[in-house]
Amino acid sequence: MISKNKIRFINSLQQKKIRDDKHLFVIEGDKIVREYLSAGSRLHILAATQEFIDSLLPGERINITEIEAVRNKELKAISTLKTPHNALAVAEIPFHELNEKEVFKGLSVALDFIQDPGNLGTIIRAAAWFGMNNIVCSENCADAFNPKVVQASMGALLNVKIHYSSLIWFLGEARKEGLEVYGTFPEGESIYKSELGNDGIIILGNESKGISSDLTPLVTKKLTVPKFTKAVSGIESLNVGMAASVVFSEFARRRIE
Amino acid sequence: MISKNKIRFINSLQQKKIRDDKHLFVIEGDKIVREYLSAGSRLHILAATQEFIDSLLPGERINITEIEAVRNKELKAISTLKTPHNALAVAEIPFHELNEKEVFKGLSVALDFIQDPGNLGTIIRAAAWFGMNNIVCSENCADAFNPKVVQASMGALLNVKIHYSSLIWFLGEARKEGLEVYGTFPEGESIYKSELGNDGIIILGNESKGISSDLTPLVTKKLTVPKFTKAVSGIESLNVGMAASVVFSEFARRRIE
Repeated sequence: MISKNKIRFINSLQQKKIRDDKHLFVIEGDKIVREYLSAGSRLHILAATQEFIDSLLPGERINITEIEAVRNKELKAISTLKTPHNALAVAEIPFHELNEKEVFKGLSVALDFIQDPGNLGTIIRAAAWFGMNNIVCSENCADAFNPKVVQASMGALLNVKIHYSSLIWFLGEARKEGLEVYGTFPEGESIYKSELGNDGIIILGNESKGISSDLTPLVTKKLTVPKFTKAVSGIESLNVGMAASVVFSEFARRRIE
Repeated sequence: MISKNKIRFINSLQQKKIRDDKHLFVIEGDKIVREYLSAGSRLHILAATQEFIDSLLPGERINITEIEAVRNKELKAISTLKTPHNALAVAEIPFHELNEKEVFKGLSVALDFIQDPGNLGTIIRAAAWFGMNNIVCSENCADAFNPKVVQASMGALLNVKIHYSSLIWFLGEARKEGLEVYGTFPEGESIYKSELGNDGIIILGNESKGISSDLTPLVTKKLTVPKFTKAVSGIESLNVGMAASVVFSEFARRRIE
């Protein structure tokens, strides 16, 4: 049985302040926990049903510091989900130095004030799928290790390095290196007809406000995903997760053309 | 003040059975309610703050049968959202006959057992954006007039005709007409390299099970959105909303090439 103290500790990781303090975050769901294990990640705590624990391979088990067999009722007490899965884990928040040499090679993503955790998770998942390995978030973005982001990213956090930084500084540095800064704007050029490079920064803006006005001057190429309909109501915009998927897809497909 | 009976009635529309019975559904949020009004839709009930009501144009007002000025507290009682907006409306569920002549012209979408309302809403929004006007859902898909779908589709339901039908029957009819049936499968051909037509049906499958095995034989072209990374953990798949956005985008961009 899991102690009350440990339940309290795991629950406390729902707060960003505590996560930042302890450098720990919570992973929920059988599938994602397995992804972390098979990637060789160290888990500080695994709280799972006996069945899940029995299914662990010896090579996975040695990467777990504490294993707690729990019942469904206990899982409910530590889960943020309405219907908890069979496994929940606590893992270390990876720290990645913002290495300019690496971030400025190939395509990287900058996120300006993405507020919704589900959107942030979707963007991380899309970035991982389309081979973008670094995401630089403005300080006012949602926290990438928030349980809802972890959930929506479906393990993609294993492949994408997340940085938090001033975007004015970051984009400024990119510009000094002579990199293109691509941004999505309603008035941008159709992404399907634009020249897209293999290097540069792709910046996506806030769900309702778009890319903020202090960053706009740093954008060298304004892009848009054009609308293929003449209808005027009901389709003001794509949401930022969908836009990210289409934009990343378009950059990726050019590399194989 | 809104009557208890009316609150009960609006809340009852959260149930599919009642919606089907009354042919009514609930629209939430200032932005979406405005989209419906500016599209000239008839609203049976508008429950909104006095400020929202005062902002209505005369041309919008005449399309509303009952206007109820409500306070935030009352909005909370009828809203499915944690933080309700300033307006909520009850509108008629549009009925569209499955007109084969229309559905078989251009590209239409078939959805096989899409369970998550958020995903369904996203797909409807993507379809509207990329100019696909008809979506045929299998009978076991989430209900398109479920409040969460309406929310995620952001008014796109105004532009896309939703049908519920047996997909075996529907795809069979499409095949009889000589149409291509495109489906996404992990083992499919890269969508970026495939020949894509201007007519046909694009079928998307269930979130975890994909396209069901009884429909697979009706697919004439298997497609996939390839992964642009060598990483093996953490990126098993795109979610179906993201996949839909990329697939629809790819079909649409070919038309302008």
